[in-house]
Amino acid sequence: MKIEPRLYRGMRDILPADMLIREELLADVRETFRLWGFAPLATPAIEFRDILAGKYGESADRLIYNIEHKDGIALRYDLTVPLARVVAMNRNDLPTPFKRYQIQEVWRAERAQPRQGRFREFIQCDVDIVGTDSLIADAEVLALSIDLLGRLGFPGAITRINHRAVLRGLMEVCGFKPEEEMDVCRIIDKLDKIGEDGVREELAECGFAAENIDMLMKTILSGDGTGAMLDEVESKFHDNKRIAKGISDLKRVLNFAESFGVQPESVRFDLALSRGLDYYTGTIFESVVPELPHIGSLTGGGRYDELIGLFSKSPIPAVGITIGIDRIITALLDAGKVEHCKTPTRVLVTIFDESLAEKSIDLARKLRAEGVACEVHLEPVKLKKQFEYADAQGIPFVVILGEDEIAHGLYSLKDMRAGEQVELDFESLIRKVVD
Amino acid sequence: MKIEPRLYRGMRDILPADMLIREELLADVRETFRLWGFAPLATPAIEFRDILAGKYGESADRLIYNIEHKDGIALRYDLTVPLARVVAMNRNDLPTPFKRYQIQEVWRAERAQPRQGRFREFIQCDVDIVGTDSLIADAEVLALSIDLLGRLGFPGAITRINHRAVLRGLMEVCGFKPEEEMDVCRIIDKLDKIGEDGVREELAECGFAAENIDMLMKTILSGDGTGAMLDEVESKFHDNKRIAKGISDLKRVLNFAESFGVQPESVRFDLALSRGLDYYTGTIFESVVPELPHIGSLTGGGRYDELIGLFSKSPIPAVGITIGIDRIITALLDAGKVEHCKTPTRVLVTIFDESLAEKSIDLARKLRAEGVACEVHLEPVKLKKQFEYADAQGIPFVVILGEDEIAHGLYSLKDMRAGEQVELDFESLIRKVVD
Repeated sequence: MKIEPRLYRGMRDILPADMLIREELLADVRETFRLWGFAPLATPAIEFRDILAGKYGESADRLIYNIEHKDGIALRYDLTVPLARVVAMNRNDLPTPFKRYQIQEVWRAERAQPRQGRFREFIQCDVDIVGTDSLIADAEVLALSIDLLGRLGFPGAITRINHRAVLRGLMEVCGFKPEEEMDVCRIIDKLDKIGEDGVREELAECGFAAENIDMLMKTILSGDGTGAMLDEVESKFHDNKRIAKGISDLKRVLNFAESFGVQPESVRFDLALSRGLDYYTGTIFESVVPELPHIGSLTGGGRYDELIGLFSKSPIPAVGITIGIDRIITALLDAGKVEHCKTPTRVLVTIFDESLAEKSIDLARKLRAEGVACEVHLEPVKLKKQFEYADAQGIPFVVILGEDEIAHGLYSLKDMRAGEQVELDFESLIRKVVD
Repeated sequence: MKIEPRLYRGMRDILPADMLIREELLADVRETFRLWGFAPLATPAIEFRDILAGKYGESADRLIYNIEHKDGIALRYDLTVPLARVVAMNRNDLPTPFKRYQIQEVWRAERAQPRQGRFREFIQCDVDIVGTDSLIADAEVLALSIDLLGRLGFPGAITRINHRAVLRGLMEVCGFKPEEEMDVCRIIDKLDKIGEDGVREELAECGFAAENIDMLMKTILSGDGTGAMLDEVESKFHDNKRIAKGISDLKRVLNFAESFGVQPESVRFDLALSRGLDYYTGTIFESVVPELPHIGSLTGGGRYDELIGLFSKSPIPAVGITIGIDRIITALLDAGKVEHCKTPTRVLVTIFDESLAEKSIDLARKLRAEGVACEVHLEPVKLKKQFEYADAQGIPFVVILGEDEIAHGLYSLKDMRAGEQVELDFESLIRKVVD
């Protein structure tokens, strides 16, 4: 009995056209990380369940894929808990600070919405600096993420920045209790999705006082995002120690970031940025491309000083950022900055007939020696069929090598886009097919 | 309660020193695949159990990791069955022939022997040509694998080649029955591990006649591996149709391979090469580095015309090769062709004191703009500690930027290996730190 070929919901095959874009993007990302002195790490897909359990909150625990095995094992849910484990297990082999990047799949049994780009398997791409509370580190990951977006074709990306201490101080000033702060953070985080009215409604439903809500909303939605706004907030709330500390940190981070090459206009101080995750303790940031608002944030991160020490004897400060690879690919395609192509091949060398196959194969060898990605048509079928293959694959150049060409030491080259065919010697052929 | 940080047996973390080698190797491998006109594919880690079950033999079925889930899902066991599924599900979107490479992890619940390099999670790196029985395709994957080994630093690698039809014809000639052929193949495959006597013993234990065993062993161990040997075998066994067909195929493959750039002396016809897997139907090959016999084969593959059609209506011919990434890394390290380093950073820019931090950060920005991988020390601790960090990380150059240097527009550069320190302007600094 034949088994019906099919995919488990939330999984996807990545066919060549998408993979070619993805591999090129990841190569650029890795190169940028290395330029900034970050080193790669990989951890296994399978971890013990008790390493993962209880780290992501109750509802997330239910989204972990468990493996049927007596030893109690499960699939990786993110890259941060494995990093905490690695740091605890390799203290003597890792430097302090430890600057690492990690690009690997994670698995979550969430409701899959493949059309909205929500999958149960996806790549996470994390950069973190572990082991220092220096604000230069905050500035470095901030500047790295902005540099990276610029290199990928988004020099106009805007990074919103805020500080958890400022947010918490603000809530204090607005009359919220300390135990309410995380709930409020999580609701504010929905601002982009449900709008100001939606946030006000949800806060009211939680039973918070109308005047507290009103004061908070007015404050977080005010300001122009510039450096001057930092001064305004500082002087307005100078009595609150948390706000004072947060603003002072932010000023230093932005100052260092400028030395790292960040243009002041690409960063916007935004009191409404809260990032939902509980674990942030200091700076938080998030980057968007203003021309592509529907895509959401392309990068996001911040300082989290209590998570990495999970498996160690004492807390270990850390700051990091996640790069949204899938979203960046969507953004690149939407902005027309990359194009799908089905194959890396630039030149198809046809086979005129079986007896001349070696001549064509030999030409392919010579083209490769010049660094030109090429392939020989593998079957000596009619030339028409070979051209159809090149056309369907979007291969830009096709070479014909018949007896006439061989006799004259020439090659017939067809430019598939222009539709022109010319006879050339090898040197001219190379010049023509190399960009 | 703190959870003890630990790894499930057979899993490994790949720390920066190993990852840097691995990423560079994989980048070279991908570039070579693309140069030969192969396109990348990725499939999900999670597949339905019934897609995987029964494809690898009974004992292998027990090595599949099942996931606890009502839908009956499991972890990928290899990249070939997923390829067969992809081919069946995307017939209209994929070209014929489909030339794809795929580099992804697989998981097997085997007995783990981490010290011998046997893990339960490992990378497979497969190149296959699906949809043609053209012998040019066999020659192409053969030539690609030899080209790749050359580019990676092993131009002296030797590829053993044989043909399943020749092997089966030989067994026929030696008096074995058709239903015994696969068992004999699997035993011959152990020749490198258990030696001639071991193979003879195992064959005898299976109850095969002594004279059959003797004739088979003498034949497969004879010959010098050259092209002349093909003629000898051909004329010696000219009555056997399978041998005649196999030898004729091999001659054509080797002929095409030469046009693809393969040096005749790097291929050796070897009647004792059988490759254990049941599914091969034609050419088979395997590459080793003679100077590093302990490492085993670095690549291996062949033609398998009955597997890819598993989920399709009719058989689909295919030929492919697997690149042993882990073994190649071991071989590169053993041969001294690569060195471990802990970080991509070439230059550490120290921070003289907190007030001069921006100057150091600014220099790092300028170095990066010139393409030099560098990092700023993130904390303004004593210079001695900053040098210790560079030393422990194996960073080759350290820059000091104090008030004197700033006043004169110069940089103090210490070459950590040579132990020399010089004062340079920016241009001379760049020249010095770039290889």
